[in-house]
Amino acid sequence: MSKISEAIQAGNENFMAAFKRGDAAGVAACYAEDAWLLPPNGSIVTGAPDITVFWQGMMKLGIKEARLETKLLEERGDLAVEVGQYTLTIQPEGAGAITDVGKYVVVWKDDGGTWKLHIDIWNTSAPA
Amino acid sequence: MSKISEAIQAGNENFMAAFKRGDAAGVAACYAEDAWLLPPNGSIVTGAPDITVFWQGMMKLGIKEARLETKLLEERGDLAVEVGQYTLTIQPEGAGAITDVGKYVVVWKDDGGTWKLHIDIWNTSAPA
Repeated sequence: MSKISEAIQAGNENFMAAFKRGDAAGVAACYAEDAWLLPPNGSIVTGAPDITVFWQGMMKLGIKEARLETKLLEERGDLAVEVGQYTLTIQPEGAGAITDVGKYVVVWKDDGGTWKLHIDIWNTSAPA
Repeated sequence: MSKISEAIQAGNENFMAAFKRGDAAGVAACYAEDAWLLPPNGSIVTGAPDITVFWQGMMKLGIKEARLETKLLEERGDLAVEVGQYTLTIQPEGAGAITDVGKYVVVWKDDGGTWKLHIDIWNTSAPA
């Protein structure tokens, strides 16, 4: 693996670990200051405070874990484009766990040596 | 505008024009040979033949027009990342027209002087 792919793998590990401990601010800290979050069924979210609120909301809906698997990674200078597959584990209060599988594109940016999520968009692969 | 942003604007104009005349193969021709299409509620689609079939299916569902509006464009070498807003006009057989507004990320690639869609993902902004 290149240094950049190792750094992005580390970024994804941080993201997954923060998610698993229910730490929305920790998830938001994986994003660059001026990040664009493009969630399904909602408007664009930018900036760490609003990104924290967004992930807090998702965690309250019962999302317990996000697994991320890189499928394609292309680097150009201080940007890297990742295509991946996500698996969300969702356990609403008093109900059994379900999973949602989908795909994402993340544009990573070198933020002074640490690679952070700069643009993040995803959608489900489940039928409508 | 830079030369690249002009080329990408031209790519989007071609895409919209092909869409408007119901030309799925013309839409698919805007994509690079090895393009990744990541549609909501479905699996990843790659390659011009399958991308043509995908857009034919969308047109049969009644999608008549796709309007694309660039919100952010960042270029690095032979790649450019575009964030945009889409507006689809959908007119199912025997029903009134509705619109769906959402956002997309397209990674464009310089394909021998012509910029083509290399990665394409989108999701709706409408509530679930």
